[in-house]
Amino acid sequence: MAVYTEVQDEDLSAFLATYDIGTVLSYKGIAEGVENTNYFLHTTVASYILTLYEKRVKETDLPFFIDLMQHLAKKGLNCPLPVNNRKGEALGRLSGRPAAICTFLEGIAIRRPTAQHCGALGAALAKLHLAGSDFERVRPNALSIDAWALLFAQAEAQADNVSAGLSRRTLQELKALEAEWPAGLPSGIIHADLFTDNVFFIGGEVSGLIDFYFACTDAFAYDVAICLNAWCFEVDGSFNLTKGQALLAGYQSVRRLEPGEVEALPVLCRGSAMRFMLTRLVDWLNVPPGALVRPKDPLEYDRKLNFHRHVKHARELGLAA
Amino acid sequence: MAVYTEVQDEDLSAFLATYDIGTVLSYKGIAEGVENTNYFLHTTVASYILTLYEKRVKETDLPFFIDLMQHLAKKGLNCPLPVNNRKGEALGRLSGRPAAICTFLEGIAIRRPTAQHCGALGAALAKLHLAGSDFERVRPNALSIDAWALLFAQAEAQADNVSAGLSRRTLQELKALEAEWPAGLPSGIIHADLFTDNVFFIGGEVSGLIDFYFACTDAFAYDVAICLNAWCFEVDGSFNLTKGQALLAGYQSVRRLEPGEVEALPVLCRGSAMRFMLTRLVDWLNVPPGALVRPKDPLEYDRKLNFHRHVKHARELGLAA
Repeated sequence: MAVYTEVQDEDLSAFLATYDIGTVLSYKGIAEGVENTNYFLHTTVASYILTLYEKRVKETDLPFFIDLMQHLAKKGLNCPLPVNNRKGEALGRLSGRPAAICTFLEGIAIRRPTAQHCGALGAALAKLHLAGSDFERVRPNALSIDAWALLFAQAEAQADNVSAGLSRRTLQELKALEAEWPAGLPSGIIHADLFTDNVFFIGGEVSGLIDFYFACTDAFAYDVAICLNAWCFEVDGSFNLTKGQALLAGYQSVRRLEPGEVEALPVLCRGSAMRFMLTRLVDWLNVPPGALVRPKDPLEYDRKLNFHRHVKHARELGLAA
Repeated sequence: MAVYTEVQDEDLSAFLATYDIGTVLSYKGIAEGVENTNYFLHTTVASYILTLYEKRVKETDLPFFIDLMQHLAKKGLNCPLPVNNRKGEALGRLSGRPAAICTFLEGIAIRRPTAQHCGALGAALAKLHLAGSDFERVRPNALSIDAWALLFAQAEAQADNVSAGLSRRTLQELKALEAEWPAGLPSGIIHADLFTDNVFFIGGEVSGLIDFYFACTDAFAYDVAICLNAWCFEVDGSFNLTKGQALLAGYQSVRRLEPGEVEALPVLCRGSAMRFMLTRLVDWLNVPPGALVRPKDPLEYDRKLNFHRHVKHARELGLAA
C-alpha cells in the first residue's frame, strides 16, 4: 500500500519509448499491492498498470510470474497481461528496479464479500486452475509446510508476547500438520494469495484476478483452503457456512473436487491458516522503523486455525453432501 | 502522498448514486496531494478524482475552494471541475469526511522543469490570475506575513537544532520583512502553492493546474514569487536565471507586471521563501510518531531566502530590462 520507488517523468518517457503503447498522458502512484510499487498509467493508447518490483520479490522468480500471466491471459482468464516491448520482452528496468507494464483491469475489490461474491470467486479460482493446467513452468511453493518451522523459529521467542500460549499452540499444530499433511493431491498452478484485494468485481461478476506474485505449483485444494479462510470468515471471527457453501459450489461448477481433495480440505485449511499466521507474525515482529505499511494482525489467522481444529469434514466448511 | 481514509466499495457506490456520472468501474487510492486523500475513479461515464478532505483543510473553507474551481473551469482554465450531484451540490460526505468528485486532468508533473516548462508555467499562472479576477468571494491569505511570527514561535526553541543560527537569521529577516512588506499591489485570486507537483504538462504545454486548497486573495506578484522559488532553483541551491527569465516572460506575455509589482518582487521572493521555510520547519519538528509522510526540508527554503537577501532588482531574477 505504498509507493516505494518514485518514477521520474523523464525515466518513464524513456522506458515507454521502448514499447509500442503510445506516450504518457498521466501516471499516478497507487496504493495497491503490499510488496511492489504500482502506478496507474494512461497513455495515448490505453490504461495500464506499471509495476516496479521491490526487494521482497525475488528477481529470479519474475520470468515465471510474467510468463504465467501471459499464459493465463492467452487462455482467456481476466488477469493482467504483461505487455511486450519492441524486443519482445515484458520485463525491463526502470528507476533502478525490475519493471513491467500490464494491461489495466476494471473492477473493484470487495472488502465485505457476500455469498454471491464468494460463489463467483470460487468459479474464478477453478477457471484459474484449469487455465494454468498446461503451463509448463514449475515453481515450488516456498511458503508451504517445509518453510513453516523456519518461519516460526524467527518469531518463537516473542510469540507469547503477541498472544499468551501462541508459542505452544503453534508448535503443537506444526507437529500435527507434519503428520497429517496430504501428498499426491491434484496439483498445478495456484494463486496462493487470492485475498479480497486481489479479486475485482463489476456488479456481482469477477472482472479480474491480480497480484500473481505468490503463484506457484501446489495442490489446487490448498488454493481453495486459502480462499475459504480469506473470504468466508466474518469480522467477528465466525465462519459463515453460507459463504463456504457458495464458494465450494462455485468452484465445483467449474472443476469437481476429487475424493482425496475433499478429505484433505480441513487439514489444508489449517495449513493455510498457519501459513498466513506465520508470515504475519514475522512481519508483525519486524516492522522496520519508519515503515509506511501497517502489518496485518497474525492473531486473525490464529483464530481461524483454532476454528479449523474442530472441523472433521469438508461438509462443515460448506461442501455439498 | 498517502491514503488517510479508506473508502469501502459499498460507501462509494451509495455516494455515486447521488450523482449522474454512472457507476464505478474501478477506483484506486493515489499518492497525490499531501493534505487530502485522493482516489482515481473510473465510472461508466468518465474518469474523475475523488477527494476526501482531511483535517488540515478547514471545512469552512471548502465552499470557497469548490466555488473557485467551478469559476475557473467555467472561464476555460484547465483545473479540476468539482461535479455537482443531483441536488446541485459539489460537496458531500463520504466515509466520515467531506468529499468532492472532480473531473480528471491528463498530464504529468515535471520534477525537473526546463526553461520551456517555466515559460509555460508563467503564462498559465497569469491566466489563472486573469480568470480569477471576477471571482467575487474573498479568502485572506492565512499563511502570509501576519502569520509568520506565530508560526516561528512554535519552532523557535528548536530552530538552532535544525541549523546553527537559524533562529537569529529568521528573527532578523522577519523584522526586515515587517518593515519592507509592500501594500496596495494588484491583488485577486492566487494559487499560493503552485509547486511542480501541482502543474501537469503534456509535451511542453501546461495541461492542468491542481490542488487549489491554499488558494486565497493576495497580491498576484506574491504568487509569481512563490513560483520563482519553486521552479527556478536547481537542486544544488543555485538560481537558474534562464528559468527565471522564461517564467517572467511567460507571465508577462499574458499579464504585464506593473512597476510597483516589479519593484516589490525581490521582497516578495524573500517573504515567500520565509513562508515555506516556516511551515516546513513546524512540520519538521512535529512529525507525529508513525507518520506516513516524510516532511520536506525547511533548509532548502532557508537557502533560497539567503539568495534573495542579495537581490536588489527583479532583473537579477530574470525580468526583461
